[in-house]
Amino acid sequence: MSSPSATQDSYPYQNEPIWSSSEKAVARKAFDAALKRELHEVMQETKQMATQINEPADLWDLEHYLTQRRKEIDRKYDYRYSQLTHVFGRLLYEERLREEELRGLREDKLKSIRAFAEFLAEDAA
Amino acid sequence: MSSPSATQDSYPYQNEPIWSSSEKAVARKAFDAALKRELHEVMQETKQMATQINEPADLWDLEHYLTQRRKEIDRKYDYRYSQLTHVFGRLLYEERLREEELRGLREDKLKSIRAFAEFLAEDAA
Repeated sequence: MSSPSATQDSYPYQNEPIWSSSEKAVARKAFDAALKRELHEVMQETKQMATQINEPADLWDLEHYLTQRRKEIDRKYDYRYSQLTHVFGRLLYEERLREEELRGLREDKLKSIRAFAEFLAEDAA
Repeated sequence: MSSPSATQDSYPYQNEPIWSSSEKAVARKAFDAALKRELHEVMQETKQMATQINEPADLWDLEHYLTQRRKEIDRKYDYRYSQLTHVFGRLLYEERLREEELRGLREDKLKSIRAFAEFLAEDAA
């Protein structure tokens, strides 16, 4: 399979890779699956925190937890094609997404995604 | 018992009734008891809502509920002597406080408290 450079594979006015319709389908499915898993995790954690509420301060801890998680999820799950390689890179780094779920994306995109995941891992180390 | 007018029973610079130390003790106890009951109610409601979380939207409903209740409680429980008759009037109106819990306050204060409770009842009707 030929692998044109990022420059060739761009809109003329933007430095963004083109996403084919089959790639869009893969991306949407992977994105939705990761989001669903993360929301499920928040639901479980919330139920757990609620059972452990013993004093008023625990209420506001739960409120704070929910606000933080909502903002973080809003920021993280940004389904713009210009952002998707970073989004998937982060999800890979956070182990919220397995690389198999991205099968069907072009190799240049997978490279960008892996590179961002590695950057985050090094940054955190 | 003599019942001086509100004007006589004021600081020279403010139109506020004076609270004796025994009245302050009664007020503190009634205030804390009502607050404790209301917070307990929020804790029970939160646990209940958490058990019923089935989808992500339920999480943000719970967050919203907690934020609203926190703000409402912050606003309502204002322990400044200049505000206390209104605070107690509201708690009486909301049936979060029984009049017996205010026993020991001077009659002029009880009158103001009852009057504010009645005002709120009429206003809501």
